[in-house]
Amino acid sequence: MKRRIYVKSQSLKEALKVWSEYIASLPYSDIEEIPVSESLHRVTAEAVSAHISSPFYHASAMDGYAVRFEDTHGASETTPVKLKLGEQAVPVNTGNPLPEGFNAVVMVEDVHQEGDYIIINESLTPYQNVRTVGEDIVQTELILPENHLIRPVDIAALLAGGHTRVKVRRKPVVGVIPTGDEVVEPGSPLKPGNIIEFNSRMISSMTALWGGECRRESITSDSKEILKDKAINLLNYCDFLVIIAGSSVGTKDHTPELLGDLGEVLVHGVNIKPGKPVILASINGKPVMGLPGYPVSAYITYELFARPLIYHLQGLKPPSSKLIKARLSRPVYSSLGQTEFLRVKVGKVAGEFVASPVGRGAGAIMTVQRADGIVEIPEGSEGFAQNEEVTVRLLRSEEEIENTIVCIGSHDNCLDLMANFLKKRHPLYSLSSAHLGSMGGIVAIRQSQAHIAGTHLLDEATGEYNIPYIKRLLKDVPLVLINLVYRMQGFIVKKGNPKNIQSVEDLLRDDITFINRQAGSGTRVLTDKLLRERDIDPSRIKGYNREEYTHMGIASAVATGVADVGVGILTAAQALGLDFIPIAKERYDLIIPKEHLERPMIKALLDIIRNDTDFHKAILDSGGYDISDIGKVIYEQ
Amino acid sequence: MKRRIYVKSQSLKEALKVWSEYIASLPYSDIEEIPVSESLHRVTAEAVSAHISSPFYHASAMDGYAVRFEDTHGASETTPVKLKLGEQAVPVNTGNPLPEGFNAVVMVEDVHQEGDYIIINESLTPYQNVRTVGEDIVQTELILPENHLIRPVDIAALLAGGHTRVKVRRKPVVGVIPTGDEVVEPGSPLKPGNIIEFNSRMISSMTALWGGECRRESITSDSKEILKDKAINLLNYCDFLVIIAGSSVGTKDHTPELLGDLGEVLVHGVNIKPGKPVILASINGKPVMGLPGYPVSAYITYELFARPLIYHLQGLKPPSSKLIKARLSRPVYSSLGQTEFLRVKVGKVAGEFVASPVGRGAGAIMTVQRADGIVEIPEGSEGFAQNEEVTVRLLRSEEEIENTIVCIGSHDNCLDLMANFLKKRHPLYSLSSAHLGSMGGIVAIRQSQAHIAGTHLLDEATGEYNIPYIKRLLKDVPLVLINLVYRMQGFIVKKGNPKNIQSVEDLLRDDITFINRQAGSGTRVLTDKLLRERDIDPSRIKGYNREEYTHMGIASAVATGVADVGVGILTAAQALGLDFIPIAKERYDLIIPKEHLERPMIKALLDIIRNDTDFHKAILDSGGYDISDIGKVIYEQ
Repeated sequence: MKRRIYVKSQSLKEALKVWSEYIASLPYSDIEEIPVSESLHRVTAEAVSAHISSPFYHASAMDGYAVRFEDTHGASETTPVKLKLGEQAVPVNTGNPLPEGFNAVVMVEDVHQEGDYIIINESLTPYQNVRTVGEDIVQTELILPENHLIRPVDIAALLAGGHTRVKVRRKPVVGVIPTGDEVVEPGSPLKPGNIIEFNSRMISSMTALWGGECRRESITSDSKEILKDKAINLLNYCDFLVIIAGSSVGTKDHTPELLGDLGEVLVHGVNIKPGKPVILASINGKPVMGLPGYPVSAYITYELFARPLIYHLQGLKPPSSKLIKARLSRPVYSSLGQTEFLRVKVGKVAGEFVASPVGRGAGAIMTVQRADGIVEIPEGSEGFAQNEEVTVRLLRSEEEIENTIVCIGSHDNCLDLMANFLKKRHPLYSLSSAHLGSMGGIVAIRQSQAHIAGTHLLDEATGEYNIPYIKRLLKDVPLVLINLVYRMQGFIVKKGNPKNIQSVEDLLRDDITFINRQAGSGTRVLTDKLLRERDIDPSRIKGYNREEYTHMGIASAVATGVADVGVGILTAAQALGLDFIPIAKERYDLIIPKEHLERPMIKALLDIIRNDTDFHKAILDSGGYDISDIGKVIYEQ
Repeated sequence: MKRRIYVKSQSLKEALKVWSEYIASLPYSDIEEIPVSESLHRVTAEAVSAHISSPFYHASAMDGYAVRFEDTHGASETTPVKLKLGEQAVPVNTGNPLPEGFNAVVMVEDVHQEGDYIIINESLTPYQNVRTVGEDIVQTELILPENHLIRPVDIAALLAGGHTRVKVRRKPVVGVIPTGDEVVEPGSPLKPGNIIEFNSRMISSMTALWGGECRRESITSDSKEILKDKAINLLNYCDFLVIIAGSSVGTKDHTPELLGDLGEVLVHGVNIKPGKPVILASINGKPVMGLPGYPVSAYITYELFARPLIYHLQGLKPPSSKLIKARLSRPVYSSLGQTEFLRVKVGKVAGEFVASPVGRGAGAIMTVQRADGIVEIPEGSEGFAQNEEVTVRLLRSEEEIENTIVCIGSHDNCLDLMANFLKKRHPLYSLSSAHLGSMGGIVAIRQSQAHIAGTHLLDEATGEYNIPYIKRLLKDVPLVLINLVYRMQGFIVKKGNPKNIQSVEDLLRDDITFINRQAGSGTRVLTDKLLRERDIDPSRIKGYNREEYTHMGIASAVATGVADVGVGILTAAQALGLDFIPIAKERYDLIIPKEHLERPMIKALLDIIRNDTDFHKAILDSGGYDISDIGKVIYEQ
C-alpha cells in the first residue's frame, strides 16, 4: 500500500463521501468479554439471550399464605373455607418460593386465623398472587441485540437473565502524536514562540465522550524520521492514528509526505474554514488523520471526520446534533468555494432564537469555548444578511440557552463577576456577555436581541448619562434603567508612565501610539468628546484607527507595547499592573426591558446585584468602583 | 438527631417538596484540585481566570516577513519599497514570535526577493498579519465560572490560559448496602427463593451517568445490628447512603426503624406506583434513602429522588428530560390517589407518536428495559382513554424512536432474530416488537400504530391464511403481504411427555391442566378451531381461561409445571428442552402497508429477509421452520 494520491483541496461533500465509504469498509473493533457490572456505555458485540428465567421459581407476589387453589373452590362470605396451617396453607412473604405442590397465594389481609386454621372467604384461581417462572424474562429470550449501547437498565436485565459477563466491542484506541519544535507541554516555562500543546488533551476528551480512548505520545520534534518511527509503532496497537501538526506549517511539515510514504492519502486539504489543511489517510488498513495545528481547525475537523469513525468502530451510528433555527443578529460575509463553520452565541430573548457571530480566527479557541452553536455557511454562499434565518447546530442544550441571560453592550469587568455570582448562586442560570459597546447594547435592546444592556453614554448637551439616549432611541420600549456602578475612566499607560503622558494633548506627540475603542462604545464617545472640546483632529493621532473591543483589550495592547496609551477603566489597568491617569468618573447602568423583569433568571440576577454582599465585596476588591447606587432604579419608562 | 417522624405515604408532590428543600440545604461536595487533562465532565468549584494571555507573545499569523509598518509607508505598485533582509525584514513562519522592534508581517506571496532585499508594493498597518498578545484570551479574563460542567473545549481553554490543574467538586460518593437473607450475588448457584442482586449495579450505573460514584457493600443479611454497623461506617466517608431492601418485606424490614434510630425520617412511603415503600431520611446531616427491592420501584424512586441530589452535590441542576406528546394505543386505568409511572413503547408510524403500555409489574425490569418512555398518570386521574394525548418522558432519543420499526402482532421467535440482524447490519435501526396476537397486529395496522404486523390467522371457511382477514378488516389499506416462514404448531408438553398427551381430546382429562394463548392470537384461533371441529366445550378444559401472550410463555408454563400442555411452535418447545406433538403446519406472514415500503429502514429489513443468508441460516438453526417462500409477496392490494 504505497500508492500516493494527492487530491488537493476537495469540497467538504467530496471529502466526506470518500471518508464515509472508507469508514464503512473498516471492521468493528475486536470483541472482549467484561463483567456486566462494568459494561455501562459499552456496545454489545453479539446478541444476548437469557440464560435463566426471571423469576426462575414461582414466587409469592404478596405476603400471605401459599395454598392449593383447588382447596378454595366455592369459598365465599357465606361458605368460608377452613385450611389447616402447615398442611393446606403455608405462610409466605413476598418473594418466597411457593412450596412444592402449592399453586396460589392468598393475601394476609384477606384471611383470618383461627387456631391452626386460616379462614378464606373467596376462591382463588391458579397461580393467583404468584409471579410465575419467566414472568419478567423467559429463558432463551433476546435481552439485547448486537450493536446495542448498554444502559443501566440493560445491566439489570443482563444480571437478571443470568449473565455476569458480556461480550462487547473493545473501546477504539486512538494514537495521538503532537508535533512541532515550538510546541511545549502545559506547565513548561514559556518563551516567545512557544505554543502550549492542548489540542491532544482536547481531542482526547472528545474521543472519550464518543466512547473511545486516546494513547498520547510525547511531543515529537519536526523530524520526519522520529515521527515515522512513532507512527509505525502506534499503528501496531491503535485503531486510528492522529498526527497533530505544529502550528508552524511553513517549512517543516512532513506529515503529508510521511503518510504518502507509509500508505495512501485519501484526502489532502478540504475547502473548509477553519480546517483546510486536514489530511485523511489509510496505512495498512488503519485510518490516519493529519490534524491542523490551529485549535479551532483541530476541533472542527476532528468532529467532522473522527466522530463518525469512533462510533463506527463500536458498531454505532453517531447521534444527530440538535439543530435549531435562529435569526442572525448581523450580516456575515463568507468566501464562495469554501464551507465556513461560523461560531455563534445564541440567545432566546423574545421567544425567538438569535444567533450572533463571535469571531472567526482559527487560532482563537475561545470562539468555540464561548459559542453556543455553529452555523455552516455552504460553499455556494457568500454569507447571510442581517435577520436572515440560519440553522444552528447547538453546542449547548436548548435548556441551557433558554436559561441564559443575554447581556449585550458596554464591557465592564463587573460583568464577569456578575456572570460568576449568578452561576455560583443559581447553577441553572448563565450570563452571556457580548461586548459591542454601549450603542450596540441599545440597538440590541431595540431589536429584542438582549435581555439586558450595559451602557455609559454621556450626552454632551446635557452632561447626563444614558437617559437622553434611551429617550431618543428606545422611546417605545417600556424599560427600567438600573445603576450598577460608578467607575473611573482614564489613560491606561505602561507601569511608571515612561512616556510621561499627562493630558489629552500628549496624544498628538510623535513618540506616542494610541489604541482606540470601537465606534459606538461609551469610552469612544468620551474620547471623542475630549478631542472635540480641545479641537483636536483625530486623524493627527497615531493609532486612532486601531480599535479594541474591551477595556482589557486596551490594557493588553498597552502592556505588550502595541500602543503607549488608551482610554479605559482603572480595573483593567490594575489587572495587568499598569498605570492609570484619571480623566472622568462615569455612571455605568443596565437597561432592562420591563417584559423581562418577571423572568426568574432576571429576578435572580437583580437579587444578586441588590442584596449579595459577597458580590458587592468582590466589586470593591477589584478596585476603582463606587457602588453607592448599585441596583437603584435611575429611570423608568 | 434522634427525632423520629413517621410520615406515612405522602403524595409525590409533598414528598418532592420536603426532599428538594432538604437537598437545597446540603452543602456542595468538597473541593479537590486535579489535572486539567483529567477534568472532563467535572464541575468547577471556583471561577477560573486566565493566568497568561493567549497568545502570550505577538505571533506571526502568516508565513512571510516581519517588518516595521513605518518602513512600508507609501508603498504601492508604482512606488515599491525595498527592505533589507536581516535588518528591515526578517523571515517568519506562522506562529513565530515577532522579533523585538518589529510590528507587522507581510505575507510571503505579497513580496518578491531581489538579492538581499524584499520588494513590497503595499503599505502595512500596525500589527497587520500579527496575532497580538491576548487576541484569544487576555490574562485575568474569566475562562470558566463556578459550577461549570467542564467540556473538551474548556480543557483547551484552561490549558491555553496557563492552567495545568483546576479546582473541581469531588465526585459525590454514594454508599450502597444491598440487604436480604434471600438476596445473592450474580453468578452464585441459585436455589428457589434466591433473588439475584442487580439493583445495586443498576443504581451504580445510574449514579455514574449523573457524575457520582458508588461504593457497594457486600450483601447484608436481615440483621439489624449488622446493617446498623455498616450504615454508620459508610456514613463516615460517603455523601449519600442507600439501603436496598430485600424484596421480602414481610417480617424482617428493619430499615425504617434503623433510620429512625440513627437520624430523622423525612418521608416514609410515597403514593406512587411502583415505588411506594421508599424511605427518605437524614442522618447527621447526610441524606439517606431506603430503596424498595422491586427493581422497577428501585429504578423509578432512585431517579426521582437520587438524581437531583447527585447533581446538587456537584453544584449542578439536572438537565430536563425530553418530553413528547403521543396518543395512547389503548385505554389505561389507574387508581385515584396514587401517581403511576406507566412504561410505554413509543413508535412513530404515520408522522405521529403512539404510546403503548408494556406491562405494569414492579418486579418486571423488562418493562423498563423495553420501554421507550414513561407516562406519569397523576394521582387525581383514573387513567386515560384510547387515543388520548399523553405526555411521554423519553428514555431513548427521538432519533432512535424515529429509526425504530414498530412490529405489532403475532409472536414468533424469528422476530428476535430479525431484530438482531437489523441492528447488526444497520446500527442506526431497531425493531421493536409488541406481542398482541395476529388480530392485534391487524388492528394496529388499521390504526396506523405499526409499520409491520406478523400474522398467521387461519380462515376456517376457506382454509386460507391471512388474506381473508386482510380483505375483511384492512380492505382500504394499500399493503403487501410477505411470507416470512412456515412453521409447525403443536402441543408443547414436558420432556418425555409424562402424561402421554396425544390428541385434542386428552385436554379434557382430569389430570391435565391446559395453558391457553390470548384471544385474537393466531394460535388461539387454531386452538378454538380444533375444539369446535370436535364439538368440545372449552369450559370443560382446566386452565382454558389462563392466558399467555407468547409461545415462550406457553413453553415456560409447561416447563415449570404451571400447566401440562399448551399449543405453540416447535422452536419454543426446543428452546426449553420440551417435547412437541405436531398439530398443523401454518404460514406466518408480515403485513406491510405500501406507504412504509420506501422508508430506508423498511427497505433494509426487507433486504435482510430476502437476501441475508446468515439470517436464513439462523432461522433454520433454531429449528422447525420452512423458509422456502421467505420474502415472497403472497398478496398485494
